[in-house]
Amino acid sequence: MQCLSDIGEISLIKHLCSKLSMGSNVKTGPGDDCAVVTAENNSKLDILLTSDPVTQNIHFMPDADPEAIGHKAVGRVLSDIAAMGGNPLWVLLNTSAPKETPLNTADGIIKGAAALTEKFGASIVGGDISEGPTLSINAFAVGQVSKGKAILRSGASDGDVIFVTGTLGNSIKGKHISFIPRIEEGLYLQRKASSGIDVTDGLLMDLKRILEASNAGATLDLNAIPLSRDALDAKDDKTPIEHALTDGEDFELLFTLPKQVKDSVISEWNKTSLASCTEIGTIKASPGIEYIGSYDSIDLEKLSGYLHF
Amino acid sequence: MQCLSDIGEISLIKHLCSKLSMGSNVKTGPGDDCAVVTAENNSKLDILLTSDPVTQNIHFMPDADPEAIGHKAVGRVLSDIAAMGGNPLWVLLNTSAPKETPLNTADGIIKGAAALTEKFGASIVGGDISEGPTLSINAFAVGQVSKGKAILRSGASDGDVIFVTGTLGNSIKGKHISFIPRIEEGLYLQRKASSGIDVTDGLLMDLKRILEASNAGATLDLNAIPLSRDALDAKDDKTPIEHALTDGEDFELLFTLPKQVKDSVISEWNKTSLASCTEIGTIKASPGIEYIGSYDSIDLEKLSGYLHF
Repeated sequence: MQCLSDIGEISLIKHLCSKLSMGSNVKTGPGDDCAVVTAENNSKLDILLTSDPVTQNIHFMPDADPEAIGHKAVGRVLSDIAAMGGNPLWVLLNTSAPKETPLNTADGIIKGAAALTEKFGASIVGGDISEGPTLSINAFAVGQVSKGKAILRSGASDGDVIFVTGTLGNSIKGKHISFIPRIEEGLYLQRKASSGIDVTDGLLMDLKRILEASNAGATLDLNAIPLSRDALDAKDDKTPIEHALTDGEDFELLFTLPKQVKDSVISEWNKTSLASCTEIGTIKASPGIEYIGSYDSIDLEKLSGYLHF
Repeated sequence: MQCLSDIGEISLIKHLCSKLSMGSNVKTGPGDDCAVVTAENNSKLDILLTSDPVTQNIHFMPDADPEAIGHKAVGRVLSDIAAMGGNPLWVLLNTSAPKETPLNTADGIIKGAAALTEKFGASIVGGDISEGPTLSINAFAVGQVSKGKAILRSGASDGDVIFVTGTLGNSIKGKHISFIPRIEEGLYLQRKASSGIDVTDGLLMDLKRILEASNAGATLDLNAIPLSRDALDAKDDKTPIEHALTDGEDFELLFTLPKQVKDSVISEWNKTSLASCTEIGTIKASPGIEYIGSYDSIDLEKLSGYLHF
């Protein structure tokens, strides 16, 4: 019998989504960072909806600081809202835990989750706590964006310039549990970017998601990709550029700007206190990724990102 | 060290919620069936937010029909929206499952979940599927209600009459996984009920939640409580009335109507095709529950409902 690991995560999600039908109040259904929905036709706002789990031994280790676990649970959903250029409003947290979980753990989780939620002016308004075999938190977030202005994956077009915020690679060293979701950067990009996604499964895989949704290809400059300190310091079987291209959970924003506005947008960006951003390539009409620049001993064909199944 | 099972579920939730602060766009935070929030001051609608998990071995057994699991996952959150008198709009589903889970199981879950969601005109618009140690689904739902008209737990007052829909008890026999959330009944009650809740942890415990939130007491007529066929047929260590008072997951609506409108509301109700509803008691100003009617061999002091911790 076919099981989930046989079909693979990407095909599985497409397969399951094909069974769904959307009401007319759904502008963008499953397949982007958030769903974009609208409750009232005359509203000036669209609503963003997203959810993510964090589970022990998969998204954090048993010795992780509880505050960092709460921070990550909220950070993941806020990062999805950032990728759409949205402003977070409300968060719900479902926590599942064994009976013998220390109360201090629950206290730490809620402290970390509340601190990050409130940092962006949002509120934790509900959720549930129930018994379960291992510690896991499912976070749900609601955000808002000006009507029709959500940054989708599907908007990249020929000649657009590709950027990424911050630095990439080896986030498993610590950044995956302490990152700040790029809410302010996403808000800045709301009326400017032609497409965007947050880097959760590796730059290459997430770039491919933009390209697939936009029916486009890209030229990627390997020498331009901003490498994190942890990627540069890694002493393992991956080179720094391999870490940057394939590691999950960087939670940076990968986005495109139309060629004609990119100089003015970036010039203005550089006057702000937003995270750094770096030009790394160009969208082209024909499919596939063409690499420029070079690194020794990496096999670009073999690289892939993180998938659960 | 104090752990979750030491503090108990009700105190635990209060303890954790005490660490949260709410923005001005939050009308009702944690502690009711849904959070009530508002995105725009000039909107005629309030937004309802709720989330619930269903986990194998806790909310369903490993041999449960996958369609029933998906049905229950959505049914639980829609029941919360029903309890507030709301109309469901959008659902997100986070599913966690071992790699070796059959694809048929995932197909069945999404089929059952989509069928129930679409029955009420809502859409499944997102979610996530990730690896996890056991099958669990966290559902999140967004609903809407006319501004200021959400049915809260806190609105019951002296003299209000208490009603419950359907019949109660022994839902573990099957109803817990096949129930229809009382959305239509909730919508009917939206501008009529003074308070309401869905019966998830047993009639007594959920009535106490209304009484605590409303700072009131009640007189409960034991002989009036509508017993389900499965409660009447139970051959175990609980009597039918004990099942009806304490079993979890009936997913009926428990609500109160002001005395002066109850005859006209119920007379109109009885002309509809809504589920049956039954008068079972009265709200009083002084705290505590006074029982009228009697059953042999039940110790009312000892009865309690279902709690995770």
